[in-house]
Amino acid sequence: MKKIINAPQAYTEDMLRGIYKAHSKEVKYVHDDLHCYCTTKKVPNKVAIVTGGGTGHLPLFLGYVGDGLIDGCGVGKVFQSPTPNQIFEISKEVNQGAGVLYLYGNYTGDIMTFDMASEMCEMEDIKTASIVGADDVNSGEMAIRRGVAGIFFMYKAAGAKADELASLEEVLAAAQLAKDNTRTVGFALSPCVIPEKGVPNFTLAEDEMAMGMGIHGEPGIWNGPIKSSYEIAKESLDTLLEDMPVSEGEEVCVLMNGLGATSLEELYILYNDVESILSEKKISVYRTFVGEYATSMEMGGASISICKMNDELKKYMDHPVNTPFVRL
Amino acid sequence: MKKIINAPQAYTEDMLRGIYKAHSKEVKYVHDDLHCYCTTKKVPNKVAIVTGGGTGHLPLFLGYVGDGLIDGCGVGKVFQSPTPNQIFEISKEVNQGAGVLYLYGNYTGDIMTFDMASEMCEMEDIKTASIVGADDVNSGEMAIRRGVAGIFFMYKAAGAKADELASLEEVLAAAQLAKDNTRTVGFALSPCVIPEKGVPNFTLAEDEMAMGMGIHGEPGIWNGPIKSSYEIAKESLDTLLEDMPVSEGEEVCVLMNGLGATSLEELYILYNDVESILSEKKISVYRTFVGEYATSMEMGGASISICKMNDELKKYMDHPVNTPFVRL
Repeated sequence: MKKIINAPQAYTEDMLRGIYKAHSKEVKYVHDDLHCYCTTKKVPNKVAIVTGGGTGHLPLFLGYVGDGLIDGCGVGKVFQSPTPNQIFEISKEVNQGAGVLYLYGNYTGDIMTFDMASEMCEMEDIKTASIVGADDVNSGEMAIRRGVAGIFFMYKAAGAKADELASLEEVLAAAQLAKDNTRTVGFALSPCVIPEKGVPNFTLAEDEMAMGMGIHGEPGIWNGPIKSSYEIAKESLDTLLEDMPVSEGEEVCVLMNGLGATSLEELYILYNDVESILSEKKISVYRTFVGEYATSMEMGGASISICKMNDELKKYMDHPVNTPFVRL
Repeated sequence: MKKIINAPQAYTEDMLRGIYKAHSKEVKYVHDDLHCYCTTKKVPNKVAIVTGGGTGHLPLFLGYVGDGLIDGCGVGKVFQSPTPNQIFEISKEVNQGAGVLYLYGNYTGDIMTFDMASEMCEMEDIKTASIVGADDVNSGEMAIRRGVAGIFFMYKAAGAKADELASLEEVLAAAQLAKDNTRTVGFALSPCVIPEKGVPNFTLAEDEMAMGMGIHGEPGIWNGPIKSSYEIAKESLDTLLEDMPVSEGEEVCVLMNGLGATSLEELYILYNDVESILSEKKISVYRTFVGEYATSMEMGGASISICKMNDELKKYMDHPVNTPFVRL
C-alpha cells in the first residue's frame, strides 16, 4: 500500500487532527469528538445545513463546511457512515433556532444515521428537514441512485439560500431545485486502497476503464478498453442529456471532478471535448468548475456533472463561498 | 497508459483549449499562439510578472496567472521549456510601462529561454529583471538547486508587491526575500507517464519511495522502503531546518503540496506530523497551504515547503489572490 500514513487504523483521526491544526480559525470539533466537525462561525437565525459521510472523498464532505455553504459535517471512518449521535451533537451546535437541513448522499447507512439524528433532534425541539443527493445516473433509478459530485450544486444552492436567512422550507426547496436539475456520470481508471484493508478495492486491467463505477468502487455499467477523451465525453453527455433533456439555448453549469489520481491536465482535456459537444448542441455553459470536488482517495478517473440553470440557480452559483477547501 | 486524452501529441494544446474555454473571462492567449497565456486584466503602471515552464505541473505554472499573483506564462510542451519568442510576445502584451519580472524555475532550458527573451525585450526598450526559484534542498547546492513548489511563495510575495505599484527593483526584492526564506523537500511514491512516450518516467518497487526526487523524475538522495508519515515529516524537517535554521519563537508558513496522485487525506496526515514536530521545536505556523501547487501529472508523492516569516512576508502572504486555479 503506497500511502503516506502512520497506523492504518488512525487514518481518519490523523487526517482530522491535521485539518483542525491547519484551519483552526475556521473549523472546530464539538462534543470532544474529532468526528463532529463544525464551522466556528455562527449567524443568528440562519438555517443550519449539516452533511456527513465516510472519510476518503475530500473535499467531500467536510471540505464544504464554511462561508456560503454548510455548517457542520459528521465524519465517518473510511467509506463508513458517522453515527446518529454525532449528527445530533453537530445539529445542537450549529442550530441557530431556524432549524437544520440534512443534506447528504443517498447511501443506506447515511440515511439511517440522519433519520435517527432527526428523531433525536425532534425530542429537543430542533426542527429538521432532509434531502439526499442522488445524481449518479448510471447507478439506477432515482430512488436508489447514489449521490456523488453533483451534491456540490445542492450545497451551493442551499448555502446561498440559507445566507439570505430564508426559512427551512425555502432552503430545502433550493436544494431540491439543484437536485432536480443535476446529473452526473463518472468512470474509473484505477482503484484505491482502503487503509485498514491494504489491498485495492477493485481491479482493472492495464488498458481498462469502468464506466459508471461509484466512488466506493461500486460496479458500473461496463468495463472495457480505455476510450479517448472525446469518446468518453460523448458517451457521458449522451447519458446525462437522455436522463435530463436540455434544450437548445438553455444554459448549464459543468463540474469536471477528478476522483483523486487523475491530473488537472486531463480534466481540462476532457472539458475541451465536453464543451465542444455542448456547443454543437447549442447548449451554453454558464460556469465551469474544474478540480477535485468528490474523490475516492487515490482512485483514477473523473466525473462530469451538469446542472441546468435558471435565474434562481444562477444566483446561487454566483454566491461567494469560502471554506478551507473550497473558495469560489 | 491510463490517461483521459485524445492524441498524445495534442496533450498540451487540448489542455490549453479546455482551460481557455473554462476561464475565458480571466485568461486569454496572444500572438495567435495557445502557449502565450496572459491575464485579461491590465493594471496601469504595475510591474508585470511573467513565468513559464513545461506542461504537466498544474497549477504550476499558468495557474498562478491572475489577481494578486502574476500576469503571463509561457507554456511549453510536457516537461519542455517555452520558446524565447513566446516569452517575448507575452512580455509585450503584459508590460504596462513599469517593466517585467521574469520569475521561473532553475532549469537550464528555461534559463536560456528567459535570457533570450530578456535580450529581445531590451531591443524594444522593455525593462526586465530575472529571478529563479531554487528551493529543492535535496537537489544540490543553491546554484544548481531545482525550483519546485516553493516558487509559490515567490509568486505570492512578488505579486503582492507589484499590486502596491512598487518599482521593478522592489518587486524583484520581494521575490528575493521569499526565495531566501523558502526551502522544499519532496519525495515520490509512484511515477507519471509522459503522454508522447507512453511509459512511466521511472520505476519504484511496490513498497519503495524516493526521497528527494524531482518533479520531472530526477533521482533523489535515496530510494528505500516507504517510511511512516511521521518518519517522512521528521527527515524532511531535519533537512529543511539544517539548510535554513529557524529559531524557537520564529514563525513559518507551511506548504503541503501533493504531486498529483496523492490524496488530500494523506497531505493532512503528513501535516499533522509536520506541525507536531515544529511545535516541539517551538516554531509556530503562521499559515498553512494544503493541496496541489506543483504537480507532476499523476505522480504519487508530496513535498513540504517552509517559508520563514517576517512582517513584510506576512503581509505578502495575506494579500488576496484570485486566479482560475488558486483563490486564497
